[in-house]
Amino acid sequence: MDDNILKNGERLDELQRNGYKIIQNPSKFCFGMDAVLLSGFVQVKPGVKILDLGTGTGIIPILLEAKTKARHITGLEIQEESVDMAKRSVAYNHLQDKIEIVNGDIKEASRIFGAASFDVITTNPPYMTGQHGLVNPEVPKAIARHEIYCTLEDVIREGAKLLKVNGKFFMVHRPFRLVEIINTLSKYKLETKRMQLVYPYVDREPNMVLIEAVKGGGAMLKVEKPLIVFQSENVYASEIKDLYGY
Amino acid sequence: MDDNILKNGERLDELQRNGYKIIQNPSKFCFGMDAVLLSGFVQVKPGVKILDLGTGTGIIPILLEAKTKARHITGLEIQEESVDMAKRSVAYNHLQDKIEIVNGDIKEASRIFGAASFDVITTNPPYMTGQHGLVNPEVPKAIARHEIYCTLEDVIREGAKLLKVNGKFFMVHRPFRLVEIINTLSKYKLETKRMQLVYPYVDREPNMVLIEAVKGGGAMLKVEKPLIVFQSENVYASEIKDLYGY
Repeated sequence: MDDNILKNGERLDELQRNGYKIIQNPSKFCFGMDAVLLSGFVQVKPGVKILDLGTGTGIIPILLEAKTKARHITGLEIQEESVDMAKRSVAYNHLQDKIEIVNGDIKEASRIFGAASFDVITTNPPYMTGQHGLVNPEVPKAIARHEIYCTLEDVIREGAKLLKVNGKFFMVHRPFRLVEIINTLSKYKLETKRMQLVYPYVDREPNMVLIEAVKGGGAMLKVEKPLIVFQSENVYASEIKDLYGY
Repeated sequence: MDDNILKNGERLDELQRNGYKIIQNPSKFCFGMDAVLLSGFVQVKPGVKILDLGTGTGIIPILLEAKTKARHITGLEIQEESVDMAKRSVAYNHLQDKIEIVNGDIKEASRIFGAASFDVITTNPPYMTGQHGLVNPEVPKAIARHEIYCTLEDVIREGAKLLKVNGKFFMVHRPFRLVEIINTLSKYKLETKRMQLVYPYVDREPNMVLIEAVKGGGAMLKVEKPLIVFQSENVYASEIKDLYGY
């Protein structure tokens, strides 16, 4: 029965959360650990309205619906094929009342939804600047990973406009861009309040950074304990197992 | 014989580096792990001229003289009593040709030494803003820990002026001020290029951050593997033992 909702090349993956599943096409793009870690990092009050900028196949809205008591979650995505998959996943999980997927451009997000219209923004934006080394900048993977349709500044500027005062902005990104991230957030009056570095092993450099910024917040930052992914070769640390629901 | 160089209340501490020792007065202020970690974090080319802003009893110049092939190291300190101890430590270690201790105010450092006169700046400045909770803001400990005589912005502004183009700025500070540190460095065209967080234990929040910024550098940041101080209760990790020379 599940197979009826799938198109060619797609599969239905178990999310280990409320029995939710997600439609993905492994030849196009599958969600990564970054989306799972961001969902784990997000802390929100009950009743909030959340917008996920660049939602892809809707992984973050679906995980946040399972984890939080948000009133409503919107996912904005520019790629029509991803929007189509995300909408079918929402329907499959009977979440149409809680999650809406909108086809549109992050650069126009504040025009689409209106200023100060959300309590919380989440985003797992493209990490890589430019299109260096890209064989085909039109494929979904490239668009998800490289700043082809939007830059870091676009995401932060729109996020700042879309948030109410004291609204929260959550982002996962790469540590090598941390200076630019912090400076750009400050430029748009989003003050970085909480940060966690994700280290693959305890003796390695971090490969992800999780950020929480507050619109109009003060300057004091809380840096969390390190999030270490593997406790030994191929063995996830218990914190990661918890996030994946094993 | 060692005792002849000591004044009332002072003691001579072994540094485990080249046989160097340092004069300290435990009732006033003793150097902390932050100075040792900063000295370990500093990487400089042979032949450079280094200035340590707020050198206290001269711990960083003495450790850097042992560790690097710098041509000359200057320590600037506002407190006369600390300057006196630092000068006697330099003399005791026969380092007068390599290290000069200068009595003066960080806020006037670029006037004292001239713009673009150093290749490298190091600093372990006061961490705490204001004078909240201070019983006596005149005591050496308070001056070393609280921004009584200089602010973070003073240190960064003067450091930026004192450095040559491509000169390096090394600082140890507290993670809760990281956003302000990065923003202020960027304001004065010092781009943060390398960062390491120091976690007391692998499952605790970091309590120190080590920063390397470059005058006129690009935006890409290298975040180092975590520096974890204790491997178990009261047992230093091997990396810390190496830094202390045990």
